[in-house]
Amino acid sequence: MSSTYGDKVKISVFGESHGNGIGVVIDGLPAGVKIDMDKVLVQMARRAPGKDKTATPRLEKDFPKVLSGMLDNTLTGAPLCAVIENTNTRSGDYGNLLSCPRPGHSDYAAFVKYNASNDIRGGGHFSGRLTAPIVFAGAVCRQILEQKGIKIAAHISSIGSVCDEQFNPVEIEDKLIEKLNLSSFALIDDSAEQKMRDEVEKARTSLDSVGGTIECAITGIDAGVGDPMFDGVEGVIAKAVFGVPAIKGVEFGKGFELAKMRGSQSNDPFRYKDGKVVTETNNMGGILGGITNGMPVIFRAAVKPTPSISQKQKTVDLQKKENAELEIHGRHDPCIVPRAVPVIEAVAALAIINMMD
Amino acid sequence: MSSTYGDKVKISVFGESHGNGIGVVIDGLPAGVKIDMDKVLVQMARRAPGKDKTATPRLEKDFPKVLSGMLDNTLTGAPLCAVIENTNTRSGDYGNLLSCPRPGHSDYAAFVKYNASNDIRGGGHFSGRLTAPIVFAGAVCRQILEQKGIKIAAHISSIGSVCDEQFNPVEIEDKLIEKLNLSSFALIDDSAEQKMRDEVEKARTSLDSVGGTIECAITGIDAGVGDPMFDGVEGVIAKAVFGVPAIKGVEFGKGFELAKMRGSQSNDPFRYKDGKVVTETNNMGGILGGITNGMPVIFRAAVKPTPSISQKQKTVDLQKKENAELEIHGRHDPCIVPRAVPVIEAVAALAIINMMD
Amino acid sequence: MSSTYGDKVKISVFGESHGNGIGVVIDGLPAGVKIDMDKVLVQMARRAPGKDKTATPRLEKDFPKVLSGMLDNTLTGAPLCAVIENTNTRSGDYGNLLSCPRPGHSDYAAFVKYNASNDIRGGGHFSGRLTAPIVFAGAVCRQILEQKGIKIAAHISSIGSVCDEQFNPVEIEDKLIEKLNLSSFALIDDSAEQKMRDEVEKARTSLDSVGGTIECAITGIDAGVGDPMFDGVEGVIAKAVFGVPAIKGVEFGKGFELAKMRGSQSNDPFRYKDGKVVTETNNMGGILGGITNGMPVIFRAAVKPTPSISQKQKTVDLQKKENAELEIHGRHDPCIVPRAVPVIEAVAALAIINMMD
Amino acid sequence: MSSTYGDKVKISVFGESHGNGIGVVIDGLPAGVKIDMDKVLVQMARRAPGKDKTATPRLEKDFPKVLSGMLDNTLTGAPLCAVIENTNTRSGDYGNLLSCPRPGHSDYAAFVKYNASNDIRGGGHFSGRLTAPIVFAGAVCRQILEQKGIKIAAHISSIGSVCDEQFNPVEIEDKLIEKLNLSSFALIDDSAEQKMRDEVEKARTSLDSVGGTIECAITGIDAGVGDPMFDGVEGVIAKAVFGVPAIKGVEFGKGFELAKMRGSQSNDPFRYKDGKVVTETNNMGGILGGITNGMPVIFRAAVKPTPSISQKQKTVDLQKKENAELEIHGRHDPCIVPRAVPVIEAVAALAIINMMD
Repeated sequence: MSSTYGDKVKISVFGESHGNGIGVVIDGLPAGVKIDMDKVLVQMARRAPGKDKTATPRLEKDFPKVLSGMLDNTLTGAPLCAVIENTNTRSGDYGNLLSCPRPGHSDYAAFVKYNASNDIRGGGHFSGRLTAPIVFAGAVCRQILEQKGIKIAAHISSIGSVCDEQFNPVEIEDKLIEKLNLSSFALIDDSAEQKMRDEVEKARTSLDSVGGTIECAITGIDAGVGDPMFDGVEGVIAKAVFGVPAIKGVEFGKGFELAKMRGSQSNDPFRYKDGKVVTETNNMGGILGGITNGMPVIFRAAVKPTPSISQKQKTVDLQKKENAELEIHGRHDPCIVPRAVPVIEAVAALAIINMMD
Repeated sequence: MSSTYGDKVKISVFGESHGNGIGVVIDGLPAGVKIDMDKVLVQMARRAPGKDKTATPRLEKDFPKVLSGMLDNTLTGAPLCAVIENTNTRSGDYGNLLSCPRPGHSDYAAFVKYNASNDIRGGGHFSGRLTAPIVFAGAVCRQILEQKGIKIAAHISSIGSVCDEQFNPVEIEDKLIEKLNLSSFALIDDSAEQKMRDEVEKARTSLDSVGGTIECAITGIDAGVGDPMFDGVEGVIAKAVFGVPAIKGVEFGKGFELAKMRGSQSNDPFRYKDGKVVTETNNMGGILGGITNGMPVIFRAAVKPTPSISQKQKTVDLQKKENAELEIHGRHDPCIVPRAVPVIEAVAALAIINMMD
Repeated sequence: MSSTYGDKVKISVFGESHGNGIGVVIDGLPAGVKIDMDKVLVQMARRAPGKDKTATPRLEKDFPKVLSGMLDNTLTGAPLCAVIENTNTRSGDYGNLLSCPRPGHSDYAAFVKYNASNDIRGGGHFSGRLTAPIVFAGAVCRQILEQKGIKIAAHISSIGSVCDEQFNPVEIEDKLIEKLNLSSFALIDDSAEQKMRDEVEKARTSLDSVGGTIECAITGIDAGVGDPMFDGVEGVIAKAVFGVPAIKGVEFGKGFELAKMRGSQSNDPFRYKDGKVVTETNNMGGILGGITNGMPVIFRAAVKPTPSISQKQKTVDLQKKENAELEIHGRHDPCIVPRAVPVIEAVAALAIINMMD
Repeated sequence: MSSTYGDKVKISVFGESHGNGIGVVIDGLPAGVKIDMDKVLVQMARRAPGKDKTATPRLEKDFPKVLSGMLDNTLTGAPLCAVIENTNTRSGDYGNLLSCPRPGHSDYAAFVKYNASNDIRGGGHFSGRLTAPIVFAGAVCRQILEQKGIKIAAHISSIGSVCDEQFNPVEIEDKLIEKLNLSSFALIDDSAEQKMRDEVEKARTSLDSVGGTIECAITGIDAGVGDPMFDGVEGVIAKAVFGVPAIKGVEFGKGFELAKMRGSQSNDPFRYKDGKVVTETNNMGGILGGITNGMPVIFRAAVKPTPSISQKQKTVDLQKKENAELEIHGRHDPCIVPRAVPVIEAVAALAIINMMD
């Protein structure tokens, strides 16, 4: 397993859904930076389950306890460890016996990899719950980036076939960023919300789930960040984003649309504007040769439909070694896209802070 | 700069388009494996410029000289260094002065990052020519993987609006893989070739260029390879693929199409087949929770149109600090997709070999 | 800060002496291995303060709580996090103001590095207390290594001018290893204990402290482990050992004594013994060209005298910017060598497990 | 194999003694720095064989050809590759069959590790010749460090029982550094030279070899460099120094002598001097808690006697699987300490440049 990320600011995520606790160690944070813990909690609340439209700043469960690295809310430079205790751990009997792997879940792949020793309760280390410490880490890193003028915002780009408006790739206003950063159903055009909620509701009533896309923008990043080839900005961000469960595609700028374009359309013309070099369009998503060009960095991630659905599904029985059917019980989020938005922002922050000098 | 990749088999790529030579050091190869250098040269020929339909096994230019790590074509276990000497280096005068950055190229971003000290002749370290050592490294690694039964093949999935047939995601025949591995215009359905060539020709005659997509499959990979979170198979492959110039999107399995699907459609049902667990569909591209499930690993990459076009383009003059126009002279490939196919196979091999125990 | 180690089994240590807790995340442990927690606690007890001659298996303070990665004492393959809560944290007022750095301590170097923001209470992240999670991590890794027949034992090689007998470098009996592994004052020749304790007592009554050396042996390690050059066994072990506070020298085999030897004395002759290649002597400490040769790996570490002494010392006042004097109050260990023995064994285990395939 | 070092400035060393060439790729050098190649060649000449007392700036053999990363002697920011072609490669027949491993050499350990496939001619990748590219890399890095006021010098601390004077640990004059940096038999007190040469001659005439120690100082390094625990200055330097063949011990400051000292002797008192914090002594070698304190960083390395001696030695015959005797023919350096001095300086430079922000 390697639930670590970064070589400057190093993140090590730990925990299992029904274990004693989950959390993260962040090694390499700069000493002396003041962290606003309320802002961190806002981000964690955006990701937390069981909420409706609005983000609640303080949610008692999922409350992270900082064990180290912070004194009077100021970073000490020592590794920061935050722990979220699990309160739903059952001490009683359970079997760690995986019989029928759930389609679309990690069950079968993990069963093979870990020789049937992994903790399968609630998905174990693969649980979406593990994104809580990631959001915590990202929220800390974002405050450091903000002091350098770098801001990050994402929104629900689409759910099923319903789309939000897209970012204006050459100019993204701070007001929009602030609005998105506080929203638990982050949209540029709020009029899309009801249609998206209907799409989710339709899936739910069909005992089904639905996927979507998330668009993320990083503003205020200077030209010259990133490296050519394998440590290019695209690769570094993509590795972080694919670390989020359920992400199956990442594209920068116009992304896959570029495949159908002509060079005369896709090349972003350079211009001087207020003495600064800018591009008139931003089809490249702010990245040329793996290096930022000073325009907003923009990417989109594809989120697969929640694999937990209430319909009967075909699977295998690994004990009996025969085909089987499976029905997953319990309440499941028919669409995880809204809650994944702050997670995408968080991993973008982890990626960017690791590319800064 | 960080033109390195991998922590088991470590690749360090060096060189500049008009420097003395380009090449690669590969550290961590297993001792005792016999390498068929003719097969390596076939892969390099597929990528090489100036060819037409068929791949020529021995092309005098771009011929890699192995300095170390191989004795009688057998890997010694020591780092393997291969150098391709540049023959087109001009020893005379030149200016390293970048005046007008080419739109869509790394020129401007690199100018800022390297304080105007980078070698801009022919694109320097950002030149597509640097993919030659990557193909070399990949070709060596592929032979090691093949001994473990792992095969890699890619094809031109689309150029502009012309599409090839896609891989059958649940069963890819060795015969198809062999055919693609030898082709310099790799297609599943050869009848698409003329239409694609027409599309490229149309772009060329318009003094323009065109993009496309490449689909890549990795077969014979056991279930249980990869790690959860940030070292998942998707992230590790994506980091390698985004290391290839001009790639702006990567998706696994159904990728962005999943965003519009329902869970009941996207979940791949498990079945027993000949005593082995398989999935009936392969929308997840052979990866669940970041770990392989034994099905073919399948991904697609978006290739942007060649930024070098012959039309007049808007840019800036960095010396005069004013807007300017630019015309790029010389012959340029109006579509790099066919030549990028073996590069994508190569980086896939580098990614996979770094995930094997 | 970078309190991380390893690229296969990755250790991330966190905590500050007077913070909420200290601990470690261990990423990359093999799934399915059963861990005997009592054995882990024995190792932690050997390092713990406040004990006398014998190691107490369960010491309530310094008790590590495992948050993740273990289920029914079996490794799940997910990152293992263990936390030791600090019970001596004072919530009241304190100043984080460093006035007079203690000679021999990290105070001044850390003050400069962390812009005076580091937690100085009790030494903060530099406290010897941080070796508790290291011993925990080492104790887990040792049990994995033991399943492969690899054993690790260290002893107090010297305190001041009193020396223990040294390991027989060509044959170290399991019985000796077992004895040392259970001892809190680990000696090969127990008759040295009283003389060593006298040496420590003499230092204490002089309001002073004393240094020493620790010798460590790793047995059962096959020939062929390690890599040439920078990932040689010597370098990998040394990096781990220098991670232990107060270590200022590391030598392998005859070490610095080799500098005065002739090649005819230092070269270890090869012989067949019971069909196996061995060396008659082991001046090289079981390592040739950075790679193990099948003989015991043997190294020694120099431990500086505890910097905290009760005598008045010369220092500076960083606030007043003038010379000053300093008296350190409280009880301090006049010799940390006995307690450092299990720490050295632990980091040796971390080093070795990261070199195994 | 892992002949790589560093994560900021990444070094990848390649080559085998009798292969086509040896060299190094240096990735991560800062763009725009002018490199004085004559100075680089002076360092390489100090290490080169076949010279006597004085360093020859241009020695045709071992001449490094720079393939990339440098334009008009200025770093471009792209990976720098330098190759030294081997001229003594025999294209004729040879056997790669190792029969009798040389005692004290890597032969046997490498035979096991590489399944008898490693290139054994001339020691292959383990040859001391591989230190030539290391000196090249160090010489480039040193020039970058010198621009920040950081200087590195080493001297022969001892050969056999003959000792040079040691560095004054609290003040090392630039004039001394310059003298040492140009010397091929680097001594603080030149009167020791004849006695050392006699010691070497005595060993040679006895068909034997002799070891020694090298002391190295790094001046001009600010307080606050390095990290606690596993990335402390001691560990980072030690890992680099143990990468040099024949090094079996590394100690910082008073090193192993500290083991016999009292804290009241070893603690370095702080004082203000010209408004700057200094220590009156420097027993800690300029490092506290893994972090520099602004004093010179000082370490010593133990060099084992050259394992190649002309006397008959006991070994085994790995083909016949029986005991055997071995006589090594040819001219061999009976003491490699003088030539190892610039290598130690080089790896110190690699270590330091990787710790700078």
